[in-house]
Order: sequence, then C-alpha cells, then structure tokens
Amino acid sequence: MEALRVALLGAGTVGSGFVKLLTAHAERLATLGTEVRITGILVRDPAKPRPAWVPTDRLTTEADALLADADVVVEAMGGTGRAQELVLAALEAGLPVITANKALLAEAWDALKPHALEGLLFYEAAVMAGTPVIEPLSGALRGSSLIELHAILNGTTNYILGRMETGATFQEALAEAQAKGYAEADPTLDVAGIDAAHKLAVLARLVADPSFPWEAVRRHTRGIEHLTPAVLRAARGEGKVVRLVASLYAQEGRWHARVRPVKLPQDHPLAQASLSQNALYFKGDAVGAVCIVGGGAGSLVTASGLLGDLYRLLEGYPGHPPLPAPVPAPAIEASRFEEV
Amino acid sequence: MEALRVALLGAGTVGSGFVKLLTAHAERLATLGTEVRITGILVRDPAKPRPAWVPTDRLTTEADALLADADVVVEAMGGTGRAQELVLAALEAGLPVITANKALLAEAWDALKPHALEGLLFYEAAVMAGTPVIEPLSGALRGSSLIELHAILNGTTNYILGRMETGATFQEALAEAQAKGYAEADPTLDVAGIDAAHKLAVLARLVADPSFPWEAVRRHTRGIEHLTPAVLRAARGEGKVVRLVASLYAQEGRWHARVRPVKLPQDHPLAQASLSQNALYFKGDAVGAVCIVGGGAGSLVTASGLLGDLYRLLEGYPGHPPLPAPVPAPAIEASRFEEV
Repeated sequence: MEALRVALLGAGTVGSGFVKLLTAHAERLATLGTEVRITGILVRDPAKPRPAWVPTDRLTTEADALLADADVVVEAMGGTGRAQELVLAALEAGLPVITANKALLAEAWDALKPHALEGLLFYEAAVMAGTPVIEPLSGALRGSSLIELHAILNGTTNYILGRMETGATFQEALAEAQAKGYAEADPTLDVAGIDAAHKLAVLARLVADPSFPWEAVRRHTRGIEHLTPAVLRAARGEGKVVRLVASLYAQEGRWHARVRPVKLPQDHPLAQASLSQNALYFKGDAVGAVCIVGGGAGSLVTASGLLGDLYRLLEGYPGHPPLPAPVPAPAIEASRFEEV
Repeated sequence: MEALRVALLGAGTVGSGFVKLLTAHAERLATLGTEVRITGILVRDPAKPRPAWVPTDRLTTEADALLADADVVVEAMGGTGRAQELVLAALEAGLPVITANKALLAEAWDALKPHALEGLLFYEAAVMAGTPVIEPLSGALRGSSLIELHAILNGTTNYILGRMETGATFQEALAEAQAKGYAEADPTLDVAGIDAAHKLAVLARLVADPSFPWEAVRRHTRGIEHLTPAVLRAARGEGKVVRLVASLYAQEGRWHARVRPVKLPQDHPLAQASLSQNALYFKGDAVGAVCIVGGGAGSLVTASGLLGDLYRLLEGYPGHPPLPAPVPAPAIEASRFEEV
C-alpha cells in the first residue's frame, strides 16, 4: 500500500480535531489504496497539555525538517504570520496544501493565487468549516453566472445577535458566547466583522473576480458592537431579524462586497439558520436560488472539511480552482436589505 | 486554442437548455484555453420543431458516427433503453459521460459502476438538477460518516402536496402541475415515488454503500396517489406538513432506504423548501447537520448542472467518485417521521 505523508501545522482546536478524525477514518482511507500517516505536528510548545489522542512523540518545532519529509501539508495554525511563511514554502516546493485559514487566503491572495491556479490549494474548511460551499462554488455552480450572494459566515456574531433579541446586552451575550467556547478570548475579529469579511473575500474570488482585492471587502465592513437589545426588539416587531450578512452583488456594472448588520425578513432563507449555524444564499442566472445551511465552526466540524479535502486529493481532484477570468457584473437589481 | 468536441444526446427540454447555456458561456469557457464545440445532437426526428437557438444543421440520427467524433458525451435523453446502450458504448470507448439520467444511474448501476470508479462518469444534474448535492456528497462531505439523510427529491409531488394542503384534490392538483409544465404528460414515475427512488439510489451509493441495490430502494417506495385534502389538512392542524421524503438511515446494523409520504414538523429544515424546490438534509458524525435547498427540475436549472460538470472536466476533475467501500451503519437512532 502506498503511503501519504501528512505534515500537520498546529495542534489547537482544529488541528487536534483533525488528528482524531483522521484516526477514525484510517480504515476507509486504506480502501483507497493509501496509508495516510501524520509524520509530524508542528507546535510552538511541545510541553503544553493536549488531548490524549494527540501523539506527543510526533510533536515538533522543526518546520523545515517536517516539510522536507511531507507529501501534503495540512495547515491548522491560523493567522497570517508564521502560517503564511510555511504555506508559501510548501507551495513553492510543489506540495499541495489543505488549509482552514481564511485570514491567510483573504490577505495573502496575491502570493497564493498562482499556486491555486496550479491546483495545489485546497480550502473547503476556510469558509463555513465542513459545510460544503467552496467546493460547489468552484465546481458544480460554475454552470450558472452569479447574480447575487448573501451569507451568514460568522457563528459568534450570530449567537450574540440571537441572545440580544431575547434581551441580553451585547456585553452579556459576548460573555456567554465566550463561556460556551463559541467566541475567542479576543473576539475583535468576529464582532468587528473582519472574520466574515475574510470569508467573503475568499468567496468573491470563486464567483465574481479571481483578483477581488481584500481591501475592497475590508473597506465596506461594519461589525455589531453598536447594536442594542432595543434595536433588535424593534426589528422583531417589524417581522425582521438582525443578522451580520456578507453580500456580493452587482451595481452600475461593478461587483460590490460588503459585511454589515441588516434586517432580514423572518422568512428569508438565511434567517432559517439556527444561532449556531452559518448559511449561504447563492442566486445564479440558470440555477436560480440555492441555499446551503450548516455548522460553520468547531473542532470536528472544521476537521471534517479538512479531511474532505484530503479525500478529494486522494481521488485525484485538483485544488479548488479560482475563476479563470472575472464574471461580468449583471445588470439585474440585487435584493436590498436595510442596514442597522 | 484546443477544441473539445461534445456529442449531445437529446434535444428536449434539458438538451435544448444545455445548448442555450453553453452558447452563453462560450467566452468564459475559452478563458480556460478550450473551445467547446457541439459537433452533433442526436435526435429521433430531425424535422420536429425546436427552439430557434438549436442548430438544426447539427441534428443527427447517426449515433455511431457522432460518438466516433467526440471527446465527451452529454446525455440528456433520459430513460434506460437507447440511452443506456449509447452511454455504455461511450464509456467503453473511454469517453467521459456527463448525464442527468437518474433512471439509468439507478437501474443500470452494475454496468456503470466500473466506469464511475475509473472517473469517467459525471452526474451532478441527475439529482436536484443544478443544485449541488452529488458533488458535496462525493467530495467535501466524505470528511464525515453518514448518520442519516432525508430529502425532498421530486418537484411534481411537492407541488401537488402543497396545492392539496389548500384544498385541491389530487386530480385537480395534478392537472395544474401538468398545465404549468411541472409534471410530465405521464406523471406515473413522479406520483408513484419512482423518480425520487431513482435519485435516492444514486445518493445511497455515494454515502452508504457503493453497491446499494436499486431493488432495495424500489421495494420500499410508496407514492402519494392515496392522499386526500382531508389528510393534509389534518396534518396542518397538528403543526405538520405532508411531504414525499426519501430517507437513508441505519437500523439494526444495516442501511435502509425508503421513499414515502410522511408528516414533517413545520419547522423541519426540509419543510422550508418552497413548493417548486427540492431539499436535502445530511447528518454526519463530524460535520453535524447540513441542509441544501434549491431548484430540482427545469430546462436551465438542469442544464446548469450539466455545464457545471463540463467545467469540472475542463479543470481536470475526475467524474464523481463512488465510495471505495461501504460505510458501516452507525448504532445511532435515526429521526422518525410518521408515515401517511
């Protein structure tokens, strides 16, 4: 049986989930004729306590040696600093990279894109975790041209908004989200809308323009810090719910991307997502409206997306292909939602 | 620029939609470095009136000559007779086949499966048309093992049930569906549940067992002919809606597939699909619940799925891979719905 040597970068929530899931799938992966083996796990501090299933004998701080001995890299570190260096080094060495890192994809796209065009970059887990959106938007849905896309891409803000609807203040709801493990200790990227903006930039390059600039998304991003329970109750009184929505639409012949809290009608498909879910609404010229709802964060939910990409790699799929050229912005009026 | 010669089989609703959509995408396909050219369109009667955009000079009745001159076959004939002969001839000649034919996939799987394992068979459009389900179930969602799957896979019956809820009899609702073009002149396959059963068989092989037998689905299929407006109104009174649901779940260590009308709670994700939509609910061990809702029939909606597969082929994707081996049936209690 052939062996596939996996270099795993990071053993935090997502990385340790990936180790657990890969172990559970060992037998099924073997039926594809390949023994998948984690040869090493890059960490900052090998002495830090970790879940029992993480093999401590494979923890390492030696990145160069780890990459030199790998067939594929799974990146679960997050962030743009060290992760960027390592991912680019791997891609430049011709290694396929599977990553959940939306910040990196959003902000370092100029450097990553040539490798994505070569088919080396797999990133299902970067948007809506294991819920499949990157794959259909870069695959089956290419049969339609985008008219508009709207999505709830951040679970922390969705949870906070839901709790504020029932009376909690922003600070109370945030503290609850942190206690339940939904929000990071530093929730700035979530509540300011930056995490959703990162994800929207990734999607924009799959369905609108392969060179969509990160700055053009970031510039039009507003978070939810200014909202009060009164605003959410008032919306509810109008039959609407307030959600942080990431949108991509055409206006005056150009694509626009923006992230901001809006009032959604209660029967809008995106409003059907529960507080712990993400949701994506895609309207195409031929296929019409498609809605995909599912989990968007968490250890195993995200690891499922990473492992799905590993299966695709083993089945001979290339990495997710960027659009070959920009899609012309259609002259169709997009849905409008009232900003709050 | 390279050329890709497409042999199109059939110029009915779906085939003529594909011709229209392919023409609209000519420029975008060219940015992938390939000129996609329909070299011929197989029809029974070249003299029959057709939409203006179907090039009559390329209509042919000579199947052998058409296949001999093709790089890829797009099958939009439907049925298991002639379509089966031609699809198998093409596959045996090593040609990739893109098909929307769920009856063929369901009933002739033993002959098709070896070619699917070689990566020659693309069939996104066969289930839920251009709404992406085949791709994620054979790709990104492989990172999770199936716990249970429930889906509304037939638009005609969904429309009929919706109209019966508001008082129409079965016969009235059927006549309306036919007048609106949703139902075929011969609606037997739809209302008896066979169309949904065909699609469920296709899904079962992607997520449960690559050899799931058609007979095991057909045997457990019931249609909606026996339902009355009174039954539907009574369900509504209990806060439920009656839908024809295709389910795949584990019981006593075995996978079970069945199609039958059931009462769904009004807030169930599947109940959110509008009367003209299809919906699929997938519950996986790692990813949790994922719901995909969209159109499931119609000329351009289906053509979008066929064209999406053509893009995938051009990007170097293999055909949708069957599971390499059966997934063990989990010892988890599946959702139960009351049959009607």
